[in-house]
Amino acid sequence: MTCSRRTFLGVLGGVTAGGALAVATGRSLAAPGAAPAPQGKRFAQVNGEFGWQPHALDPKVCVPVAYEGYWYKGYACGYGAFYGIVGMLGEQYGAPYNQFPFTMLEANKGGISDWGTICGALYGAAAAFALFWPRKERNAMVNELFRWYETTALPIYNPGEAAKGVKGDIPTSVSNSVLCHVSVSKWSYDNHLAANSKERSERCGRITADVTAKAIEIFNAKIAAGAAYKGALSKQKSVAYCTDCHAKGKDADILKGNMDCTPCHSGSEHTMNKFKDHP
Amino acid sequence: MTCSRRTFLGVLGGVTAGGALAVATGRSLAAPGAAPAPQGKRFAQVNGEFGWQPHALDPKVCVPVAYEGYWYKGYACGYGAFYGIVGMLGEQYGAPYNQFPFTMLEANKGGISDWGTICGALYGAAAAFALFWPRKERNAMVNELFRWYETTALPIYNPGEAAKGVKGDIPTSVSNSVLCHVSVSKWSYDNHLAANSKERSERCGRITADVTAKAIEIFNAKIAAGAAYKGALSKQKSVAYCTDCHAKGKDADILKGNMDCTPCHSGSEHTMNKFKDHP
Repeated sequence: MTCSRRTFLGVLGGVTAGGALAVATGRSLAAPGAAPAPQGKRFAQVNGEFGWQPHALDPKVCVPVAYEGYWYKGYACGYGAFYGIVGMLGEQYGAPYNQFPFTMLEANKGGISDWGTICGALYGAAAAFALFWPRKERNAMVNELFRWYETTALPIYNPGEAAKGVKGDIPTSVSNSVLCHVSVSKWSYDNHLAANSKERSERCGRITADVTAKAIEIFNAKIAAGAAYKGALSKQKSVAYCTDCHAKGKDADILKGNMDCTPCHSGSEHTMNKFKDHP
Repeated sequence: MTCSRRTFLGVLGGVTAGGALAVATGRSLAAPGAAPAPQGKRFAQVNGEFGWQPHALDPKVCVPVAYEGYWYKGYACGYGAFYGIVGMLGEQYGAPYNQFPFTMLEANKGGISDWGTICGALYGAAAAFALFWPRKERNAMVNELFRWYETTALPIYNPGEAAKGVKGDIPTSVSNSVLCHVSVSKWSYDNHLAANSKERSERCGRITADVTAKAIEIFNAKIAAGAAYKGALSKQKSVAYCTDCHAKGKDADILKGNMDCTPCHSGSEHTMNKFKDHP
């Protein structure tokens, strides 16, 4: 333990009382099966859980920084979107926002180490929301952002002369999916542009800006509306249709997820057998 | 701006020099298109980029805490796995590890707000890796963890009497996918257990423990091997087959991703048209 008790008390701030009691009395607050936490109450958190205070952000200021963050040392989409929100709070308000280890979000590059799972820009925004609001308040924000992404022709943002990859217009596509693999591959297929091209990198940089703009719109609306916040977009038709049977208490409760079902469950040519008679 | 220049200088630590110069001279270090960073060099980071120091962890101590974290206030898989690594470093070594706003990882519950994208436990581990190593060093760690997850019958962990959901054995399945939607739905379908059942919650709690155990094995191996670290698992057969043509410089560069291709591209009954003649 490199932390003195004094440091520890300072560090835990608002949740000190219980932790200090545990340290003073030696009473274990840990769960059965797990060893006690040596520095006090397990899961205690600096500033409390979801304890950061949100401040409205100006998309005109933040969105170009998200785009810039995408290109900064190739840290990419998750880093750009997250810095465009949390980093910009740090630039304006200091701690705790500027204490965050921002490069952690590089994890999301290429849908997490190029695996093509969640679009990194979407994760960066969802994680930023989660610094301020717990799931019961946050899920409506994430739903709004993800549904918008699934149904909007992207990219929209054009950095003009500040473009880092390719200047001018970039072809768009509607992804129907929040997954990097589907989003990138569909854009690439629809527009006859290589998935590993400079145009595709530029496309993802601009989408990082677009997602940050939409996320800030939602972030500001949430601050204004509080617990009453509701998104504008309804559940996707396919999800509503499928969860008629595939949901809790229904005929076939075997489904987890809220992604649009159509890209993988409508028998499209893309999901046919590619391991047999495929050119 | 709530931070004084003195605070700012202290906060940025190792990267202070450039920032202080920018503050002192008023020289903008921001990119074209973005306003200058008011507190100095944009993207500067406390402790430097990927600046945290790793310490070997004891899975016997950490894995039960990851399981416990899964259940703690329902913060779930991402929180549990991340706390089982980074939180446990915080309990043993104090700052910077214990300064992290851990509940941010609740974002990953149910594959991000129940959307069923990346398995939250996998993200928690990948994000933990990214606090210490940049992508060129980290991608091999993520590949090893994700390939192991795709091909292993899970869950393995059994908390015994400390079980929080269901005690005793839990049926297993091999997911073939790092996506929560596929992983949960396949387990549910294969084992005739509801996706919204207590058994499924228990299954995901145990998988949080399993992923943390594997992640710590990789984490410790990386510390020991340094830049020479290599995983044991090869690229999946399907990915090797498909990227023969669908890769940079090849015939059809339209693919982004390293997920096993078979769940969605082998023409299985699950990807047939569910919107027509489906019971």
